[in-house]
Amino acid sequence: MADNSTQSAQVMDITWDDATWILTSAFIIFTMQSGFGLLEAGNVSPKNEVNIMMKNVVDVVFGGLTYWMFGFGLSFGVDKGTNPFCGVGYFFVDIEDENMGVIYSTFVFQLSFATTATTIVSGAMAERTKLTAYTLFSFFNTVVYCFPAHWAWASSGFLSQLGSVDFAGSGVVHLVGGVSGLVATIMLKPRQGRFDDKAQPEMANPANAVVGMFMLWWGWLAFNCGSTFGISRGKWKLAAKTAVTTLLSSMSGGIAGTALSFIVHKGKYDIGYLVNSILGALVSITASCPLIHPWEAVLIGAIGGVLVIGVDHLLVKLKVDDPVSAVAVHGAGGLWGLISVGLFTTQDPVENITYGRNGLFHGGGWYLLGVQTLTILCEVTWAALITFILLFIIQKTMGLRVSPEDERLGADLVEHGIMQKTDGSQLAFTSQNTPV
Amino acid sequence: MADNSTQSAQVMDITWDDATWILTSAFIIFTMQSGFGLLEAGNVSPKNEVNIMMKNVVDVVFGGLTYWMFGFGLSFGVDKGTNPFCGVGYFFVDIEDENMGVIYSTFVFQLSFATTATTIVSGAMAERTKLTAYTLFSFFNTVVYCFPAHWAWASSGFLSQLGSVDFAGSGVVHLVGGVSGLVATIMLKPRQGRFDDKAQPEMANPANAVVGMFMLWWGWLAFNCGSTFGISRGKWKLAAKTAVTTLLSSMSGGIAGTALSFIVHKGKYDIGYLVNSILGALVSITASCPLIHPWEAVLIGAIGGVLVIGVDHLLVKLKVDDPVSAVAVHGAGGLWGLISVGLFTTQDPVENITYGRNGLFHGGGWYLLGVQTLTILCEVTWAALITFILLFIIQKTMGLRVSPEDERLGADLVEHGIMQKTDGSQLAFTSQNTPV
Amino acid sequence: MADNSTQSAQVMDITWDDATWILTSAFIIFTMQSGFGLLEAGNVSPKNEVNIMMKNVVDVVFGGLTYWMFGFGLSFGVDKGTNPFCGVGYFFVDIEDENMGVIYSTFVFQLSFATTATTIVSGAMAERTKLTAYTLFSFFNTVVYCFPAHWAWASSGFLSQLGSVDFAGSGVVHLVGGVSGLVATIMLKPRQGRFDDKAQPEMANPANAVVGMFMLWWGWLAFNCGSTFGISRGKWKLAAKTAVTTLLSSMSGGIAGTALSFIVHKGKYDIGYLVNSILGALVSITASCPLIHPWEAVLIGAIGGVLVIGVDHLLVKLKVDDPVSAVAVHGAGGLWGLISVGLFTTQDPVENITYGRNGLFHGGGWYLLGVQTLTILCEVTWAALITFILLFIIQKTMGLRVSPEDERLGADLVEHGIMQKTDGSQLAFTSQNTPV
Repeated sequence: MADNSTQSAQVMDITWDDATWILTSAFIIFTMQSGFGLLEAGNVSPKNEVNIMMKNVVDVVFGGLTYWMFGFGLSFGVDKGTNPFCGVGYFFVDIEDENMGVIYSTFVFQLSFATTATTIVSGAMAERTKLTAYTLFSFFNTVVYCFPAHWAWASSGFLSQLGSVDFAGSGVVHLVGGVSGLVATIMLKPRQGRFDDKAQPEMANPANAVVGMFMLWWGWLAFNCGSTFGISRGKWKLAAKTAVTTLLSSMSGGIAGTALSFIVHKGKYDIGYLVNSILGALVSITASCPLIHPWEAVLIGAIGGVLVIGVDHLLVKLKVDDPVSAVAVHGAGGLWGLISVGLFTTQDPVENITYGRNGLFHGGGWYLLGVQTLTILCEVTWAALITFILLFIIQKTMGLRVSPEDERLGADLVEHGIMQKTDGSQLAFTSQNTPV
Repeated sequence: MADNSTQSAQVMDITWDDATWILTSAFIIFTMQSGFGLLEAGNVSPKNEVNIMMKNVVDVVFGGLTYWMFGFGLSFGVDKGTNPFCGVGYFFVDIEDENMGVIYSTFVFQLSFATTATTIVSGAMAERTKLTAYTLFSFFNTVVYCFPAHWAWASSGFLSQLGSVDFAGSGVVHLVGGVSGLVATIMLKPRQGRFDDKAQPEMANPANAVVGMFMLWWGWLAFNCGSTFGISRGKWKLAAKTAVTTLLSSMSGGIAGTALSFIVHKGKYDIGYLVNSILGALVSITASCPLIHPWEAVLIGAIGGVLVIGVDHLLVKLKVDDPVSAVAVHGAGGLWGLISVGLFTTQDPVENITYGRNGLFHGGGWYLLGVQTLTILCEVTWAALITFILLFIIQKTMGLRVSPEDERLGADLVEHGIMQKTDGSQLAFTSQNTPV
Repeated sequence: MADNSTQSAQVMDITWDDATWILTSAFIIFTMQSGFGLLEAGNVSPKNEVNIMMKNVVDVVFGGLTYWMFGFGLSFGVDKGTNPFCGVGYFFVDIEDENMGVIYSTFVFQLSFATTATTIVSGAMAERTKLTAYTLFSFFNTVVYCFPAHWAWASSGFLSQLGSVDFAGSGVVHLVGGVSGLVATIMLKPRQGRFDDKAQPEMANPANAVVGMFMLWWGWLAFNCGSTFGISRGKWKLAAKTAVTTLLSSMSGGIAGTALSFIVHKGKYDIGYLVNSILGALVSITASCPLIHPWEAVLIGAIGGVLVIGVDHLLVKLKVDDPVSAVAVHGAGGLWGLISVGLFTTQDPVENITYGRNGLFHGGGWYLLGVQTLTILCEVTWAALITFILLFIIQKTMGLRVSPEDERLGADLVEHGIMQKTDGSQLAFTSQNTPV
């Protein structure tokens, strides 16, 4: 909490109190990887359960390394050459001087965001993507994420300069990830037999899917509240408010999802409805969380929850295969999150996050809504284009999709040598420890 | 850490350092929901595994929303009309002025407690309660919790004014939850065939139950230590002490449970004994954690662990069906926690939590023990009465228990459309994503 | 953040800001128990899944209690009689004066380390150790850990005085645990049929093993970063750097493991390779994390990842049975961690962790490498010797290994009365709740 005498701790306005907040938040955000893993593994068919977990491992290690190599620099570099489109500097991050604390704290926090963003796509590509192709994609997927991060969050970014507001990343993280997933799933085509007449998706472990959702839920608190990027001076007030709005949005999203399931499924509680409406509400509130009233969070969450379920059904009608609803939750939720900033926000008294502007419903006129719409257009176009280029190159060289035979056998066997015993138990044999 | 010059951060004596502690603790406490979910899902029969997870979701979203609407206000409101029985104010919490940080931090922390309290009941109602009935109950269950919270924790509460001590909620959270569960399970009657001659309870996944216990264990550290409600000035010393006593109690509880299992089950380690004795010890220490010596924590935990197992067996003898031992762990453990305050505590040098009083064994005489007994009487009576009224109304209108046929089929199928494959694997089909 | 006026909060140079960091880190480190449990339970055969979870419970409760009784005192006691070999004081830790905050914070943090250290051995002893024997071993295992902790970390310890550097415990925690596990597994002999011609290890739940690895991964951030033992003054800079190097090491370890699996297993991603290479890289970086450049972390992690896999295969060739690769990961990784300190470190500007020395590659000459080698020799000898003595006594008195018949039946049935249903489902019956 630093008074002015503790100058050595205050470089770029970050104190060690802020560092505690930032680092602790980042540590909690990384636990969201466990959540994504369980959610996805619970949702796919049992023959691909381990494989989807492995994909979540692979995108952390490969995506994380490239974020260190060039992702952080392209997003937040400030060297000569930095421009509204991208940053320059901090490549292969290595800081030894006075600024070590600030830059490393920032890097760790942003890295936790970057790995979340890359993980989203794994769900959309589930059950039919070659793991080597996915690995290569993970390595370059950082490119898809780090430019929008610069546009919206670096002070020199062009969206930031226009006044675009995306507090914790409804757009940068979720919309980008959801669109990336949409392009990927369209290019991959649906899983075998997915849209056959009587097909019903199998779930390896519905209870695990709910545990995964729980883990994401609590991780989200750090994700949104940590985005105050500090706790000193007035930031703790915004952090506390963010926790309230994030929780309320998730609750009202869940209630909306329950109600909708009750109507559509005639009294049944569809677990997909509940899980997706809660996660969709969380995505929706991520852009505006410290800038709205609690009751507005209730509204935004309920709309987000219903919207996500609607888009999920729409994708099925369009025969777009979204195995774990990643496109619906992150894409549609993220889009609504950016829009709702233009409608509901008011300027905050502490950090001036909206650059003094209000949303449409608070007398701010159409400007903010316009900028948010522009943000959506830029991010959707970029994510779709770059994902397409990356996957097209992979498709033409090493191929993207496993053979029909391998898809039937399942990736757990084909990619990992794990055999389920025929009696259906969890028992598995692996090649692990076999002498080579 | 705030010296006097940083006044803007000190409203109602909370600095941003305190906010870091309070919010981080709350984030960790929410992870206990994952723990309760896994513990309960692991303990029930496989046909109700997903359903019990869903109940844990439902009570967070419905109970959480009502806590925002009226629960927090009835507990901690300070407006005109506030009295020893309940608070008035802060309904639909929405704070915009200087106090934003303090009230929102407090609300988030208390909300994490409230959702824990409501979740306890779900275990006692497992495997035979209609999900719609449970949802409605979750919505109003906040009433059961928020009045005792006012009595014991608000400065105007009548128990608080008499000098009742319940540091982190052995009574308010656990005893109330346990009694509520007891009334619910008696009203619901036992599960089909539960007390037949050769009946043995099935467990869907014992390993998951242990993972759930682990998650509760680590979350409990934040639950108890966060209850210093700050870290500045001397509070960090109480928080550190609380961590020590909480851990020691759980360890000695576990050792007592192991020893008892060894004797009763002739050398076998019954996992129910270990899980329940550790959790029971944690509940027991929750009221007194910063006010006792470490060796007293060892004693309180050991007694708590044995007591909980005894009560669990007693309930079976009485043919009261407590599917996941929630009544024994939270009810009996909470009761012993309140009593042990009257026996073992000494006044602390920092926050004067006991209002200058000592327990019976430290020369404080009978007063504190008397007040603690009164606290038990008030909380047991209230929880039993209100739970009965709520459930009675639900029973007479929409009905509380599923049909015998549905109970045999299991709630996963009946309420969620999830079918287990006949070969007994985890594989499940859901209605998720089916076009409507 | 404490200026000089807040003296009351600064005993032994720890402020309440530091306490927030230390306690929060400890709370997160305890979650690693859940990670170890899931990793081990996922890796063993299904008939021992619950039993290995129980072992992780037992070593926390028994090992934790003895750490309170004498472990902390032998490691960090400062009373008369304290010498380079062991500490004296703080037995049955109970502090009431001014120092309460400091000592209790330290104790909680060190306890989280001690329980991690004892848990490592459980993996090596899996599937064939009597639970009573393991329980007794857990009780005394604290002895194996607490002396090396004194040598390396107490200011009076002889390794510390020679200038040995082991920042977060590659040696004290992991090498000691790994060697202890090696001795135990050799004394126990391999599991039945483990090295038969066509034997392939069964895994109860590969997906759970990956979830366990994830949990360890995020917990490791608190493990390493918390070892700054504070956040005030310059410590936050070291903590931030530690997070960066820890993450980068794990990522490059995982990439190395992926590449190796790809080569050895001809295009397959062996999950054992990925899990062990990531964990091995984390162990490797634990000694040097705040003292190296990020690119050096990449190098150390990659070497650590490959080394661990190599040692794992070597053990199989030598017919040493290491069921969950604990010896390879913690033993070999820990050894490489200590060595790499002697090669790569430079003195830090904040805490002077290396006592002003540099590693071999930074012009520091051979001294540091020599001291690190001596550290390895002392720790390996001690861990091997004491583990052997303890287990030898247990073997000669109560016996160490279950009967061949019991081993075939599996410990879940024999030790816990849990029967898997014959159709292979997860369904289990337990003795829980059976009236006695």
